[in-house]
Amino acid sequence: MARIRNENSPSRQALLDAAIALMIERGTIEVSLSEIGERAQLNSALVKYYFGGKRGLLTAMVDDIVKKGIAQMSGLLDMKLSPAEKLKIHIKGVIRLYFRYPFINRLIHSMLEDPEQSKHVAKTISIPLATTQMALLKEGIDCGDFKDIDPMMFYFQVIGACEQIFFAKNTLKYAFGVQEIDDSLQRNYANALVKLVLGGLEVERSDIAAPAVIPE
Amino acid sequence: MARIRNENSPSRQALLDAAIALMIERGTIEVSLSEIGERAQLNSALVKYYFGGKRGLLTAMVDDIVKKGIAQMSGLLDMKLSPAEKLKIHIKGVIRLYFRYPFINRLIHSMLEDPEQSKHVAKTISIPLATTQMALLKEGIDCGDFKDIDPMMFYFQVIGACEQIFFAKNTLKYAFGVQEIDDSLQRNYANALVKLVLGGLEVERSDIAAPAVIPE
Repeated sequence: MARIRNENSPSRQALLDAAIALMIERGTIEVSLSEIGERAQLNSALVKYYFGGKRGLLTAMVDDIVKKGIAQMSGLLDMKLSPAEKLKIHIKGVIRLYFRYPFINRLIHSMLEDPEQSKHVAKTISIPLATTQMALLKEGIDCGDFKDIDPMMFYFQVIGACEQIFFAKNTLKYAFGVQEIDDSLQRNYANALVKLVLGGLEVERSDIAAPAVIPE
Repeated sequence: MARIRNENSPSRQALLDAAIALMIERGTIEVSLSEIGERAQLNSALVKYYFGGKRGLLTAMVDDIVKKGIAQMSGLLDMKLSPAEKLKIHIKGVIRLYFRYPFINRLIHSMLEDPEQSKHVAKTISIPLATTQMALLKEGIDCGDFKDIDPMMFYFQVIGACEQIFFAKNTLKYAFGVQEIDDSLQRNYANALVKLVLGGLEVERSDIAAPAVIPE
Protein backbone atom coordinates (compact mmCIF):
# COMPACT_ATOMS: atom_id res chain seq x y z
CA MET A 1 0.00 0.00 0.00
CA ALA A 2 1.23 3.49 -0.78
CA ARG A 3 1.87 5.82 2.13
CA ILE A 4 -0.75 8.52 2.15
CA ARG A 5 0.62 12.05 2.41
CA ASN A 6 -1.42 15.25 2.51
CA GLU A 7 -4.71 13.61 1.67
CA ASN A 8 -6.20 17.08 1.15
CA SER A 9 -3.44 18.69 -0.88
CA PRO A 10 -4.68 20.51 -4.02
CA SER A 11 -1.79 19.06 -6.04
CA ARG A 12 -2.76 15.55 -5.02
CA GLN A 13 -6.36 16.17 -6.08
CA ALA A 14 -5.18 17.80 -9.35
CA LEU A 15 -3.22 14.66 -10.22
CA LEU A 16 -6.25 12.46 -9.45
CA ASP A 17 -8.53 14.67 -11.56
CA ALA A 18 -6.04 14.69 -14.45
CA ALA A 19 -5.73 10.89 -14.40
CA ILE A 20 -9.52 10.45 -14.31
CA ALA A 21 -10.06 12.93 -17.16
CA LEU A 22 -7.41 11.27 -19.34
CA MET A 23 -8.80 7.79 -18.78
CA ILE A 24 -12.33 8.92 -19.60
CA GLU A 25 -11.11 10.59 -22.82
CA ARG A 26 -8.99 7.66 -23.93
CA GLY A 27 -11.25 4.85 -22.76
CA THR A 28 -8.28 2.98 -21.33
CA ILE A 29 -6.32 2.85 -18.08
CA GLU A 30 -3.05 2.87 -20.04
CA VAL A 31 -2.07 6.46 -19.36
CA SER A 32 1.53 7.37 -18.55
CA LEU A 33 2.66 9.30 -15.49
CA SER A 34 4.20 12.01 -17.65
CA GLU A 35 0.88 12.54 -19.46
CA ILE A 36 -0.87 12.82 -16.11
CA GLY A 37 1.73 15.32 -14.89
CA GLU A 38 1.42 17.36 -18.08
CA ARG A 39 -2.38 17.51 -17.88
CA ALA A 40 -2.23 18.55 -14.22
CA GLN A 41 0.58 21.02 -15.01
CA LEU A 42 2.64 19.41 -12.26
CA ASN A 43 5.86 17.44 -12.14
CA SER A 44 4.99 13.79 -12.65
CA ALA A 45 7.44 12.90 -9.86
CA LEU A 46 4.71 14.11 -7.50
CA VAL A 47 2.75 10.96 -8.33
CA LYS A 48 5.45 9.01 -6.58
CA TYR A 49 5.44 11.49 -3.69
CA TYR A 50 1.69 11.44 -3.10
CA PHE A 51 0.75 7.92 -4.14
CA GLY A 52 3.97 5.89 -4.06
CA GLY A 53 3.63 5.24 -7.82
CA LYS A 54 1.10 4.44 -10.54
CA ARG A 55 -0.49 1.55 -8.64
CA GLY A 56 -1.11 3.79 -5.64
CA LEU A 57 -2.58 6.45 -7.92
CA LEU A 58 -4.99 3.92 -9.46
CA THR A 59 -6.08 2.77 -6.00
CA ALA A 60 -6.62 6.38 -4.91
CA MET A 61 -8.67 7.06 -8.05
CA VAL A 62 -10.99 4.14 -7.36
CA ASP A 63 -11.35 5.26 -3.75
CA ASP A 64 -12.09 8.82 -4.81
CA ILE A 65 -14.78 7.83 -7.31
CA VAL A 66 -16.40 5.03 -5.38
CA LYS A 67 -16.34 6.73 -1.94
CA LYS A 68 -18.95 9.31 -2.98
CA GLY A 69 -21.17 6.66 -4.54
CA ILE A 70 -20.99 4.46 -1.45
CA ALA A 71 -21.79 7.40 0.83
CA GLN A 72 -24.87 8.26 -1.26
CA MET A 73 -26.03 4.67 -1.15
CA SER A 74 -25.80 4.32 2.61
CA GLY A 75 -27.72 7.64 2.84
CA LEU A 76 -30.50 5.89 0.89
CA LEU A 77 -31.31 3.68 3.85
CA ASP A 78 -32.54 6.62 5.94
CA MET A 79 -34.78 8.05 3.25
CA LYS A 80 -38.54 7.91 3.52
CA LEU A 81 -39.08 5.72 0.48
CA SER A 82 -40.36 2.21 -0.09
CA PRO A 83 -37.71 -0.54 -0.26
CA ALA A 84 -38.51 -0.98 -3.97
CA GLU A 85 -37.90 2.73 -4.62
CA LYS A 86 -34.62 2.56 -2.74
CA LEU A 87 -33.48 -0.48 -4.68
CA LYS A 88 -34.37 1.28 -7.92
CA ILE A 89 -32.18 4.27 -6.97
CA HIS A 90 -29.41 1.92 -5.85
CA ILE A 91 -29.32 0.01 -9.18
CA LYS A 92 -29.54 3.19 -11.25
CA GLY A 93 -26.72 4.70 -9.18
CA VAL A 94 -24.39 1.75 -9.75
CA ILE A 95 -25.05 1.81 -13.50
CA ARG A 96 -24.57 5.59 -13.69
CA LEU A 97 -21.22 5.23 -11.97
CA TYR A 98 -20.05 2.72 -14.58
CA PHE A 99 -21.36 5.03 -17.30
CA ARG A 100 -19.60 8.15 -15.97
CA TYR A 101 -16.30 6.38 -15.37
CA PRO A 102 -16.01 3.86 -18.22
CA PHE A 103 -12.61 2.69 -17.03
CA ILE A 104 -13.70 1.90 -13.48
CA ASN A 105 -14.66 -1.75 -13.89
CA ARG A 106 -11.50 -2.55 -15.82
CA LEU A 107 -9.57 -0.92 -13.00
CA ILE A 108 -11.45 -2.77 -10.26
CA HIS A 109 -11.09 -6.06 -12.15
CA SER A 110 -7.34 -5.60 -12.44
CA MET A 111 -7.20 -4.87 -8.71
CA LEU A 112 -9.25 -8.00 -7.98
CA GLU A 113 -6.58 -10.13 -9.65
CA ASP A 114 -4.03 -9.06 -7.05
CA PRO A 115 -4.47 -10.62 -3.58
CA GLU A 116 -3.35 -7.49 -1.69
CA GLN A 117 -5.34 -5.01 -3.77
CA SER A 118 -8.40 -7.23 -3.78
CA LYS A 119 -8.50 -6.97 0.01
CA HIS A 120 -8.53 -3.22 -0.40
CA VAL A 121 -11.37 -3.45 -2.96
CA ALA A 122 -13.33 -5.67 -0.58
CA LYS A 123 -12.85 -3.25 2.32
CA THR A 124 -13.61 -0.03 0.47
CA ILE A 125 -16.15 -1.20 -2.14
CA SER A 126 -17.60 -4.70 -1.88
CA ILE A 127 -18.23 -4.82 1.88
CA PRO A 128 -19.89 -1.37 2.14
CA LEU A 129 -21.92 -2.05 -1.02
CA ALA A 130 -23.01 -5.51 0.12
CA THR A 131 -23.84 -4.18 3.60
CA THR A 132 -26.08 -1.46 2.17
CA GLN A 133 -27.77 -3.95 -0.15
CA MET A 134 -28.31 -6.39 2.69
CA ALA A 135 -29.95 -3.74 4.88
CA LEU A 136 -32.12 -2.68 1.97
CA LEU A 137 -33.21 -6.24 1.21
CA LYS A 138 -33.88 -6.92 4.89
CA GLU A 139 -36.14 -3.86 5.06
CA GLY A 140 -38.12 -5.12 2.06
CA ILE A 141 -38.31 -8.69 3.35
CA ASP A 142 -39.34 -7.59 6.87
CA CYS A 143 -42.23 -5.49 5.61
CA GLY A 144 -43.34 -8.27 3.26
CA ASP A 145 -42.58 -6.41 0.02
CA PHE A 146 -39.69 -8.65 -1.04
CA LYS A 147 -39.31 -12.40 -1.25
CA ASP A 148 -36.87 -13.95 1.21
CA ILE A 149 -33.74 -14.24 -0.92
CA ASP A 150 -30.05 -14.84 -0.30
CA PRO A 151 -28.32 -11.43 -0.25
CA MET A 152 -24.95 -12.87 -1.30
CA MET A 153 -26.38 -14.38 -4.48
CA PHE A 154 -28.29 -11.15 -5.07
CA TYR A 155 -25.12 -9.09 -4.65
CA PHE A 156 -23.15 -10.94 -7.33
CA GLN A 157 -26.06 -11.24 -9.73
CA VAL A 158 -27.07 -7.59 -9.56
CA ILE A 159 -23.53 -6.18 -9.69
CA GLY A 160 -22.67 -8.54 -12.56
CA ALA A 161 -25.78 -7.48 -14.45
CA CYS A 162 -25.01 -3.77 -13.80
CA GLU A 163 -21.51 -3.87 -15.17
CA GLN A 164 -21.62 -6.37 -18.03
CA ILE A 165 -22.68 -4.00 -20.80
CA PHE A 166 -19.82 -1.63 -19.91
CA PHE A 167 -17.32 -4.41 -19.73
CA ALA A 168 -18.26 -6.16 -22.95
CA LYS A 169 -18.24 -3.12 -25.25
CA ASN A 170 -16.79 -5.15 -28.11
CA THR A 171 -19.66 -7.63 -27.83
CA LEU A 172 -22.06 -4.71 -27.98
CA LYS A 173 -20.35 -3.61 -31.18
CA TYR A 174 -19.86 -6.91 -32.99
CA ALA A 175 -22.87 -8.88 -31.78
CA PHE A 176 -25.47 -6.10 -31.58
CA GLY A 177 -24.08 -3.39 -33.90
CA VAL A 178 -24.17 -0.73 -31.16
CA GLN A 179 -21.12 1.53 -31.39
CA GLU A 180 -21.24 3.28 -28.05
CA ILE A 181 -23.11 3.55 -24.78
CA ASP A 182 -24.79 6.93 -24.64
CA ASP A 183 -26.89 8.40 -21.88
CA SER A 184 -30.13 7.06 -23.34
CA LEU A 185 -28.77 3.51 -23.58
CA GLN A 186 -27.48 3.55 -19.99
CA ARG A 187 -30.91 4.75 -18.81
CA ASN A 188 -32.73 2.06 -20.78
CA TYR A 189 -30.30 -0.53 -19.46
CA ALA A 190 -30.94 0.60 -15.89
CA ASN A 191 -34.71 0.63 -16.37
CA ALA A 192 -34.66 -2.86 -17.89
CA LEU A 193 -32.61 -4.19 -14.98
CA VAL A 194 -34.82 -2.51 -12.38
CA LYS A 195 -37.88 -4.12 -13.98
CA LEU A 196 -36.29 -7.55 -14.15
CA VAL A 197 -34.95 -7.47 -10.60
CA LEU A 198 -38.00 -5.96 -8.95
CA GLY A 199 -40.23 -8.31 -10.92
CA GLY A 200 -38.26 -11.23 -9.53
CA LEU A 201 -37.95 -9.84 -6.03
CA GLU A 202 -41.30 -8.32 -5.19
CA VAL A 203 -44.00 -10.42 -3.60
CA GLU A 204 -46.97 -10.65 -5.91
CA ARG A 205 -49.86 -8.88 -4.29
CA SER A 206 -52.53 -10.61 -6.31
CA ASP A 207 -55.11 -9.67 -3.72
CA ILE A 208 -54.43 -6.00 -4.50
CA ALA A 209 -53.21 -6.11 -8.06
CA ALA A 210 -55.60 -8.55 -9.70
CA PRO A 211 -58.58 -7.04 -11.49
CA ALA A 212 -61.87 -7.81 -9.84
CA VAL A 213 -63.54 -10.86 -11.31
CA ILE A 214 -67.26 -10.58 -11.52
CA PRO A 215 -68.81 -14.00 -11.03
CA GLU A 216 -71.30 -14.89 -13.70
CA MET B 1 -5.52 -15.74 -36.39
CA ALA B 2 -3.51 -18.94 -36.25
CA ARG B 3 -3.56 -21.18 -39.29
CA ILE B 4 -5.50 -24.30 -38.46
CA ARG B 5 -3.76 -27.53 -39.36
CA ASN B 6 -5.10 -31.00 -38.83
CA GLU B 7 -8.10 -29.91 -36.78
CA ASN B 8 -8.71 -33.57 -35.88
CA SER B 9 -5.16 -34.62 -35.04
CA PRO B 10 -4.87 -36.53 -31.74
CA SER B 11 -1.73 -34.53 -30.84
CA ARG B 12 -3.57 -31.26 -31.33
CA GLN B 13 -6.38 -32.45 -29.06
CA ALA B 14 -3.85 -33.77 -26.50
CA LEU B 15 -2.26 -30.31 -26.28
CA LEU B 16 -5.68 -28.68 -25.83
CA ASP B 17 -6.65 -31.18 -23.12
CA ALA B 18 -3.32 -30.69 -21.32
CA ALA B 19 -3.68 -26.90 -21.36
CA ILE B 20 -7.28 -27.10 -20.07
CA ALA B 21 -6.32 -29.55 -17.30
CA LEU B 22 -3.38 -27.41 -16.16
CA MET B 23 -5.44 -24.22 -16.06
CA ILE B 24 -8.20 -25.92 -14.07
CA GLU B 25 -5.64 -27.26 -11.56
CA ARG B 26 -3.77 -23.99 -11.21
CA GLY B 27 -6.75 -21.63 -11.37
CA THR B 28 -4.85 -19.34 -13.72
CA ILE B 29 -4.26 -18.95 -17.45
CA GLU B 30 -0.55 -18.37 -16.80
CA VAL B 31 0.71 -21.77 -17.91
CA SER B 32 3.88 -22.08 -19.99
CA LEU B 33 4.14 -23.89 -23.32
CA SER B 34 6.78 -26.23 -21.95
CA GLU B 35 4.48 -27.25 -19.07
CA ILE B 36 1.71 -27.94 -21.57
CA GLY B 37 4.08 -30.00 -23.74
CA GLU B 38 5.28 -31.95 -20.72
CA ARG B 39 1.75 -32.76 -19.55
CA ALA B 40 0.74 -33.87 -23.06
CA GLN B 41 4.01 -35.81 -23.40
CA LEU B 42 4.64 -33.96 -26.64
CA ASN B 43 7.23 -31.49 -27.85
CA SER B 44 6.01 -28.00 -26.96
CA ALA B 45 7.09 -26.81 -30.42
CA LEU B 46 3.95 -28.54 -31.67
CA VAL B 47 1.93 -25.73 -30.07
CA LYS B 48 3.44 -23.40 -32.62
CA TYR B 49 2.81 -25.93 -35.37
CA TYR B 50 -0.87 -26.54 -34.58
CA PHE B 51 -1.95 -23.19 -33.17
CA GLY B 52 0.63 -20.66 -34.32
CA GLY B 53 1.56 -19.97 -30.69
CA LYS B 54 0.09 -19.50 -27.23
CA ARG B 55 -2.52 -16.99 -28.32
CA GLY B 56 -3.81 -19.39 -30.95
CA LEU B 57 -3.88 -22.18 -28.39
CA LEU B 58 -5.96 -20.05 -26.00
CA THR B 59 -8.41 -19.21 -28.79
CA ALA B 60 -8.69 -22.89 -29.74
CA MET B 61 -9.32 -23.82 -26.07
CA VAL B 62 -12.17 -21.35 -25.79
CA ASP B 63 -13.63 -22.62 -29.07
CA ASP B 64 -13.32 -26.22 -27.93
CA ILE B 65 -15.06 -25.63 -24.60
CA VAL B 66 -17.70 -23.20 -25.72
CA LYS B 67 -18.61 -24.97 -28.99
CA LYS B 68 -20.18 -27.93 -27.19
CA GLY B 69 -22.11 -25.64 -24.85
CA ILE B 70 -23.43 -23.55 -27.72
CA ALA B 71 -24.49 -26.65 -29.66
CA GLN B 72 -26.40 -27.96 -26.62
CA MET B 73 -28.11 -24.62 -26.19
CA SER B 74 -29.34 -24.39 -29.76
CA GLY B 75 -30.61 -27.96 -29.39
CA LEU B 76 -32.76 -26.66 -26.52
CA LEU B 77 -34.94 -24.70 -28.92
CA ASP B 78 -36.31 -27.88 -30.51
CA MET B 79 -37.15 -29.59 -27.25
CA LYS B 80 -40.71 -30.13 -26.14
CA LEU B 81 -40.50 -27.94 -23.04
CA SER B 82 -42.08 -24.69 -21.95
CA PRO B 83 -40.05 -21.53 -22.67
CA ALA B 84 -39.53 -21.12 -18.89
CA GLU B 85 -38.09 -24.64 -18.62
CA LYS B 86 -35.79 -23.97 -21.55
CA LEU B 87 -34.56 -20.71 -20.05
CA LYS B 88 -33.91 -22.49 -16.77
CA ILE B 89 -31.74 -25.09 -18.54
CA HIS B 90 -29.99 -22.34 -20.49
CA ILE B 91 -29.04 -20.34 -17.36
CA LYS B 92 -27.96 -23.44 -15.45
CA GLY B 93 -25.86 -24.53 -18.45
CA VAL B 94 -24.02 -21.20 -18.66
CA ILE B 95 -23.26 -21.24 -14.92
CA ARG B 96 -22.11 -24.88 -15.03
CA LEU B 97 -19.72 -24.00 -17.85
CA TYR B 98 -18.12 -21.25 -15.75
CA PHE B 99 -17.95 -23.67 -12.82
CA ARG B 100 -16.30 -26.49 -14.79
CA TYR B 101 -13.79 -24.20 -16.49
CA PRO B 102 -12.91 -21.60 -13.86
CA PHE B 103 -10.42 -19.89 -16.16
CA ILE B 104 -12.85 -19.41 -19.05
CA ASN B 105 -14.20 -15.97 -18.20
CA ARG B 106 -10.73 -14.59 -17.52
CA LEU B 107 -9.70 -15.94 -20.89
CA ILE B 108 -12.74 -14.54 -22.71
CA HIS B 109 -12.28 -11.17 -20.97
CA SER B 110 -8.66 -10.98 -22.06
CA MET B 111 -9.75 -11.79 -25.62
CA LEU B 112 -12.43 -9.09 -25.46
CA GLU B 113 -9.74 -6.47 -24.80
CA ASP B 114 -8.16 -7.18 -28.18
CA PRO B 115 -10.08 -5.83 -31.22
CA GLU B 116 -9.19 -8.78 -33.48
CA GLN B 117 -9.85 -11.50 -30.90
CA SER B 118 -13.04 -9.83 -29.71
CA LYS B 119 -14.44 -10.21 -33.24
CA HIS B 120 -13.69 -13.91 -32.94
CA VAL B 121 -15.41 -14.08 -29.52
CA ALA B 122 -18.44 -12.29 -30.96
CA LYS B 123 -18.63 -14.70 -33.91
CA THR B 124 -18.12 -17.95 -32.02
CA ILE B 125 -19.70 -17.14 -28.64
CA SER B 126 -21.72 -13.95 -28.25
CA ILE B 127 -23.67 -14.06 -31.51
CA PRO B 128 -24.72 -17.75 -31.27
CA LEU B 129 -25.54 -17.31 -27.57
CA ALA B 130 -27.54 -14.12 -28.13
CA THR B 131 -29.32 -15.69 -31.12
CA THR B 132 -30.41 -18.70 -29.06
CA GLN B 133 -31.54 -16.47 -26.22
CA MET B 134 -33.48 -14.26 -28.59
CA ALA B 135 -35.32 -17.22 -30.14
CA LEU B 136 -36.08 -18.54 -26.67
CA LEU B 137 -37.43 -15.19 -25.47
CA LYS B 138 -39.49 -14.76 -28.64
CA GLU B 139 -41.09 -18.15 -28.09
CA GLY B 140 -42.04 -17.16 -24.54
CA ILE B 141 -43.29 -13.71 -25.55
CA ASP B 142 -45.30 -15.07 -28.50
CA CYS B 143 -47.15 -17.60 -26.37
CA GLY B 144 -47.82 -15.00 -23.68
CA ASP B 145 -45.63 -16.59 -20.99
CA PHE B 146 -42.98 -13.85 -20.96
CA LYS B 147 -43.20 -10.09 -20.78
CA ASP B 148 -42.10 -8.22 -23.90
CA ILE B 149 -38.51 -7.32 -23.02
CA ASP B 150 -35.45 -6.13 -24.91
CA PRO B 151 -33.30 -9.21 -25.70
CA MET B 152 -30.07 -7.17 -25.87
CA MET B 153 -30.49 -5.83 -22.34
CA PHE B 154 -31.48 -9.30 -21.19
CA TYR B 155 -28.37 -10.81 -22.79
CA PHE B 156 -25.91 -8.57 -20.96
CA GLN B 157 -27.78 -8.71 -17.67
CA VAL B 158 -28.13 -12.47 -17.56
CA ILE B 159 -24.60 -13.24 -18.77
CA GLY B 160 -23.18 -10.67 -16.33
CA ALA B 161 -25.16 -12.21 -13.49
CA CYS B 162 -24.07 -15.73 -14.48
CA GLU B 163 -20.37 -14.99 -14.47
CA GLN B 164 -19.88 -12.45 -11.69
CA ILE B 165 -19.45 -14.88 -8.79
CA PHE B 166 -16.75 -16.76 -10.73
CA PHE B 167 -14.98 -13.60 -11.72
CA ALA B 168 -15.00 -11.93 -8.31
CA LYS B 169 -13.63 -14.85 -6.30
CA ASN B 170 -11.63 -12.53 -4.08
CA THR B 171 -14.77 -10.58 -3.22
CA LEU B 172 -16.42 -13.86 -2.31
CA LYS B 173 -13.51 -14.55 0.01
CA TYR B 174 -12.96 -11.17 1.63
CA ALA B 175 -16.50 -9.77 1.66
CA PHE B 176 -18.47 -12.96 2.33
CA GLY B 177 -15.92 -15.31 3.89
CA VAL B 178 -16.54 -18.04 1.30
CA GLN B 179 -13.27 -19.72 0.35
CA GLU B 180 -14.28 -21.57 -2.78
CA ILE B 181 -17.11 -22.26 -5.17
CA ASP B 182 -18.14 -25.89 -4.81
CA ASP B 183 -20.83 -27.79 -6.67
CA SER B 184 -23.48 -26.97 -4.10
CA LEU B 185 -22.74 -23.23 -4.25
CA GLN B 186 -22.86 -23.18 -8.05
CA ARG B 187 -26.22 -24.97 -7.96
CA ASN B 188 -27.63 -22.57 -5.40
CA TYR B 189 -26.33 -19.66 -7.41
CA ALA B 190 -28.02 -20.99 -10.55
CA ASN B 191 -31.29 -21.65 -8.74
CA ALA B 192 -31.30 -18.16 -7.22
CA LEU B 193 -30.70 -16.58 -10.63
CA VAL B 194 -33.36 -18.69 -12.32
CA LYS B 195 -35.88 -17.60 -9.68
CA LEU B 196 -34.94 -13.93 -9.97
CA VAL B 197 -34.97 -13.89 -13.77
CA LEU B 198 -38.11 -15.97 -14.26
CA GLY B 199 -39.84 -13.95 -11.55
CA GLY B 200 -39.04 -10.79 -13.49
CA LEU B 201 -39.78 -12.23 -16.89
CA GLU B 202 -42.90 -14.32 -16.52
CA VAL B 203 -46.30 -12.77 -16.98
CA GLU B 204 -48.24 -12.99 -13.76
CA ARG B 205 -51.15 -15.29 -14.33
CA SER B 206 -53.18 -14.03 -11.42
CA ASP B 207 -56.28 -15.57 -13.00
CA ILE B 208 -54.65 -18.99 -12.73
CA ALA B 209 -52.28 -18.61 -9.82
CA ALA B 210 -54.37 -16.65 -7.33
CA PRO B 211 -56.22 -18.72 -4.76
CA ALA B 212 -59.94 -18.75 -5.28
CA VAL B 213 -61.67 -16.07 -3.27
CA ILE B 214 -65.01 -17.13 -1.90
CA PRO B 215 -67.35 -14.15 -1.90
CA GLU B 216 -69.03 -13.61 1.44
